[in-house]
Amino acid sequence: MTTPRLPETIQWVGGTDGFLRLLDQTRLPLEETYLDCRDVPAVHDAIQRLVVRGAPAIGVAAAYGVCVAVARAADDDRGTRQAAIEATESLATSRPTAVNLFWALDRMRRRIDSLDDAALSEGLLTEARQIHEEDRQMCWQIGQHGAALLPDQANVLTHCNAGSLATSQWGTALSVIYAAAAGGKQIRVYADETRPLLQGARLTAWELQRSGIDVTVLCDSMSAALMRQQRIDAVVVGADRIASNGDVANKIGTYLLALAAAYHEVPFYVAAPSNTFDLSLADGSVIPIEQRAADEVAKPFGTQTVADGIQVYNPAFDVTPAKLVTALITELGVIDAVDAPHIAQHLAGENSSLPSPT
Amino acid sequence: MTTPRLPETIQWVGGTDGFLRLLDQTRLPLEETYLDCRDVPAVHDAIQRLVVRGAPAIGVAAAYGVCVAVARAADDDRGTRQAAIEATESLATSRPTAVNLFWALDRMRRRIDSLDDAALSEGLLTEARQIHEEDRQMCWQIGQHGAALLPDQANVLTHCNAGSLATSQWGTALSVIYAAAAGGKQIRVYADETRPLLQGARLTAWELQRSGIDVTVLCDSMSAALMRQQRIDAVVVGADRIASNGDVANKIGTYLLALAAAYHEVPFYVAAPSNTFDLSLADGSVIPIEQRAADEVAKPFGTQTVADGIQVYNPAFDVTPAKLVTALITELGVIDAVDAPHIAQHLAGENSSLPSPT
Repeated sequence: MTTPRLPETIQWVGGTDGFLRLLDQTRLPLEETYLDCRDVPAVHDAIQRLVVRGAPAIGVAAAYGVCVAVARAADDDRGTRQAAIEATESLATSRPTAVNLFWALDRMRRRIDSLDDAALSEGLLTEARQIHEEDRQMCWQIGQHGAALLPDQANVLTHCNAGSLATSQWGTALSVIYAAAAGGKQIRVYADETRPLLQGARLTAWELQRSGIDVTVLCDSMSAALMRQQRIDAVVVGADRIASNGDVANKIGTYLLALAAAYHEVPFYVAAPSNTFDLSLADGSVIPIEQRAADEVAKPFGTQTVADGIQVYNPAFDVTPAKLVTALITELGVIDAVDAPHIAQHLAGENSSLPSPT
Repeated sequence: MTTPRLPETIQWVGGTDGFLRLLDQTRLPLEETYLDCRDVPAVHDAIQRLVVRGAPAIGVAAAYGVCVAVARAADDDRGTRQAAIEATESLATSRPTAVNLFWALDRMRRRIDSLDDAALSEGLLTEARQIHEEDRQMCWQIGQHGAALLPDQANVLTHCNAGSLATSQWGTALSVIYAAAAGGKQIRVYADETRPLLQGARLTAWELQRSGIDVTVLCDSMSAALMRQQRIDAVVVGADRIASNGDVANKIGTYLLALAAAYHEVPFYVAAPSNTFDLSLADGSVIPIEQRAADEVAKPFGTQTVADGIQVYNPAFDVTPAKLVTALITELGVIDAVDAPHIAQHLAGENSSLPSPT
């Protein structure tokens, strides 16, 4: 397989007076359209409405969101620095669960504090571009480390979209698949459709098909039936936040999938860059879980399916306990004893010396 | 709670020259409309398109389908008996998994063979009405037996629709809930939406709300998160076919739910009339599983969510192994050791002497 044809999820257009261009993921798979964000409310809204989604991509978009504020600052009477600081505060309220968002905004905030006025605009754009490029590199390395875990002829199940669309490029879970395929392995992917917003059906299937990977969509309730028939060799998913003990917050449904994998002795891998870890949290029970609007469940794609007045439960994420995770895959390597000491050791370790993507 | 306001799922309108009237479940919850079936192809189509669905209801509808053939037979040149026999053969091809369909058609076929020409029309209608009424009674008794298993203040999770809409009245899983509520218990129901056709969101939530039962809809991927928070006290589902060892074929997703219930030590109950058992099958591995059209997954409610050319996996049912079932509830009582000897003993036993519904 040649290099997959991956979409441009996030682009910065122009120089310090430029703007953020996002592939509008709410319109996929039927329309490939781009949304240009020229002020902070537009970036905030794009993150909230899932125009851009996926923990790493949210972090990159938010970093550029600070640059959007700086680019606009010349137009109004607030100082550039003040506009940048307010952007970091505003964008932190766009989504609550993915830690990469706060990680990227903290990093931009530190850069604001370290730059003098003359260097601010250029310095912040450089920082955001660097976050973007580092994410691309981390994702590529995740793929290199993870690919070895998949056998040839593997049938791999994934949930939601932890692909190129969820990151700067390559993805996390899907980077493992792209890398295995690029290495000559025949990989067949089963993509959970991922209710309520169908990121698996709309996004994962779309980007895999585009990249020439064999993909089959199924409803979220169907994975155990496949596993019982021994038709799944591995599960690979991404993560929105990982606690210091290895508990994983990821798209709702991940936990159920982990239970099914454990019962059927199917390896369950979580692929995420190291900035997804939140070592301030002892375990997953304290990860905040975003509750989203009832209409995402009750009115899928505008069609009302639940009668008026009926309650809806719609958490965006769940927490998979570390003991159900076979291994964690980061840009630094593979953690195959998933517990606090091994995670701490892994994150403190030296970066591996993998070659860069071509 | 007073008697719940249950919908009329299946009605025979008129005498031996009458027709079958079905509540069109494909239009719920937004429209309560009825479809009149006046020939066998219309009945076949209604079963196939899920205008009427649920294992017991399919059996009743098919029995009346034979009466529709008889009512029409006067209009054409085939004999009434021949038309009835052909109807049993045709209707047996409408759905493959629910054993009640074959059970009801076999019973009609035996009646055809035992009646003489003069008594045929009247006798077959009487038989179908009796299947209908027996199902109503069985469902009511399932509720009486099962209600004792639910504690007061119980939070009960159910999947698909095993309610009044899936049977002649009362339902199987939902009969247990109606009976517990009628007995004064406070029951809160969590209804899995049940992709791809959303019978939980559209049907279960609708009939429970109409009956005054507190109901919350969730996506199929969310149940384990609720169980982890200890917010579910019991799972109750129906069945489409039960093998002699207690393996249960039911709506796709049931197996995943059973795995989650077992892991969290939540009791997992299956409620079904005794004609759901297929003692000719040693275990669930030989139950035929209907594969349905890709568009049910790829184009929910007319909106395309999966790009063209992508494969879809869409089995209508899965099989839950007996060891994950805490108890089976039938009209005869509760089987709480779910294995072949206890099932055989239970089914051979005398009918209990519960009072009839008022």
